Amino acid sequence: MNFRVLILGSNSAIPAFGRNPSAQYIQHFADAFLVDCGEGTQIRLSNFRVKRGKIRAIFISHLHGDHIFGLPGLLTTFSLSGFENEIHIIGPIGLKRFIETNLEISQSTLRFPIHIRELEENYSGIVYETSKLEVRTFPLNHRIATFGYCFQEKQKPLRLRGEHLEQYKLVPEKIHAIRSGADLQLPNGLVIPNSELTLPPHPSYSYAYCSDTLYDESLLNYIEHIDVLYHEATFGKDMKDLAKERYHSTSVEAAQIALLAKVKTLYLGHFSSRYQELEPLLEEAKTVFKDSHLAIEGQWIDIDQ
Amino acid sequence: MNFRVLILGSNSAIPAFGRNPSAQYIQHFADAFLVDCGEGTQIRLSNFRVKRGKIRAIFISHLHGDHIFGLPGLLTTFSLSGFENEIHIIGPIGLKRFIETNLEISQSTLRFPIHIRELEENYSGIVYETSKLEVRTFPLNHRIATFGYCFQEKQKPLRLRGEHLEQYKLVPEKIHAIRSGADLQLPNGLVIPNSELTLPPHPSYSYAYCSDTLYDESLLNYIEHIDVLYHEATFGKDMKDLAKERYHSTSVEAAQIALLAKVKTLYLGHFSSRYQELEPLLEEAKTVFKDSHLAIEGQWIDIDQ
Repeated sequence: MNFRVLILGSNSAIPAFGRNPSAQYIQHFADAFLVDCGEGTQIRLSNFRVKRGKIRAIFISHLHGDHIFGLPGLLTTFSLSGFENEIHIIGPIGLKRFIETNLEISQSTLRFPIHIRELEENYSGIVYETSKLEVRTFPLNHRIATFGYCFQEKQKPLRLRGEHLEQYKLVPEKIHAIRSGADLQLPNGLVIPNSELTLPPHPSYSYAYCSDTLYDESLLNYIEHIDVLYHEATFGKDMKDLAKERYHSTSVEAAQIALLAKVKTLYLGHFSSRYQELEPLLEEAKTVFKDSHLAIEGQWIDIDQ
Repeated sequence: MNFRVLILGSNSAIPAFGRNPSAQYIQHFADAFLVDCGEGTQIRLSNFRVKRGKIRAIFISHLHGDHIFGLPGLLTTFSLSGFENEIHIIGPIGLKRFIETNLEISQSTLRFPIHIRELEENYSGIVYETSKLEVRTFPLNHRIATFGYCFQEKQKPLRLRGEHLEQYKLVPEKIHAIRSGADLQLPNGLVIPNSELTLPPHPSYSYAYCSDTLYDESLLNYIEHIDVLYHEATFGKDMKDLAKERYHSTSVEAAQIALLAKVKTLYLGHFSSRYQELEPLLEEAKTVFKDSHLAIEGQWIDIDQ
């Protein structure tokens, strides 16, 4: 699996029943990312034996404490542990002051570069990319400026029909050109069209993180037809009014978004500390969207399958 | 046991081997206190099922992240959980800005009052007291302004000789006066001297917290003859030079301070993450001060015995 998500925390603000505040580790080939960084994220990265040296960027949904209070400790521990790569940190306005004030007061100097990008309220667009992946942000509907993030694999190269590798003795440069769509000209002048040399590319997969948010169908503009959706489900359906008042969603509302967005799989998270048992929330969601699951700490979710 | 300490974290800056950054919970009769508040302190209070509603004050040694990064999350969780008592928070200059900036950026409003007191560099003196206990601070010798804290029980009342309770049919006010040292005048005018009515008070116990600090004998002015000393022991004796360079102590130096201060018992803590096994540090300390122990997370230390 080259594209997978590790749940580091899926509870709402008050840690309860062994569940911790929001954080996820996303691995895509040799790169990794964090989404949100609740208190204790560094501890759980360590407990789950995750390779933190691969982390290239940290995406912050919003500035409520249960999504950011683990960030200063994580950065200082990374620094003391010899982490050397640059890290991009992306999130709402205020993020820069949060990080810089905490580092300054604790007299911490990071030994690696960080690049903080603050997003204007309601911004949407690509905020990070690698050769294989792009990360797009979009506004959620919460009490304060809040952003969702969609991790979309770029179109993959065409697959070479195995028999041609041998037949034409292709060198790497040629292989690269053909996988990008070029035809092959043989020494005798004959041209083999690309369609005879290749098969369609492997599918590109996508994952979106939507927490915290009110039920809001404008999200569909950004997450339609994605593969896996993480959507907050702070409350059960009997708490719909409270959910609305607090700009959160019920598990049924999360399922409704998944259904309308025609995603393949839904993961529920950001559970209220009032729930010791989460199965009832899951069962409610399944009545609306069958392929619903609970996001449980320590769980790896495969996106590319 | 009416006076005891729960170790919530006794590692140095990088969490390792299941050990977390600095924090302690101190219970004295119906009151409780925290000393330092490293990341995850709120989680461990919850895991160890500690009554956090009793917490009256939080004492911060210094502003390095591994001693304070748990404070914003702890305060906001207390607030969301319905905590209502006022809390005094005492520590170095900068503490107020640290707390206020984190609360402001995370848009958190506490539902209970906090009173922050910042200590001038090198300050020593009483910073908190109850009817039964006083807390005295004193400067440690670290890279930045750092304070130790000594929890000293006030003199306890005289003990009443049991037989007199019955014989003279003493009412509560009389008992209180006698236990405070008054003589007893009988209805017939006869005066019974206090010395015939009472036994000496139970002993008063004391506990001091010294982390982080260079080996510094000026500490003896503040901790002589106390009962239990927690002293940092970041390194083993072979790392004495590095300890000095980083303004930390070795376990042998901690033991030397305990010996010179004539304390009863020493607890070592703030262990470097380079040590998976801590027994060698303990053995080194014991060669200097026999009654040395390791401060282990989850361990209750009885002070009044």
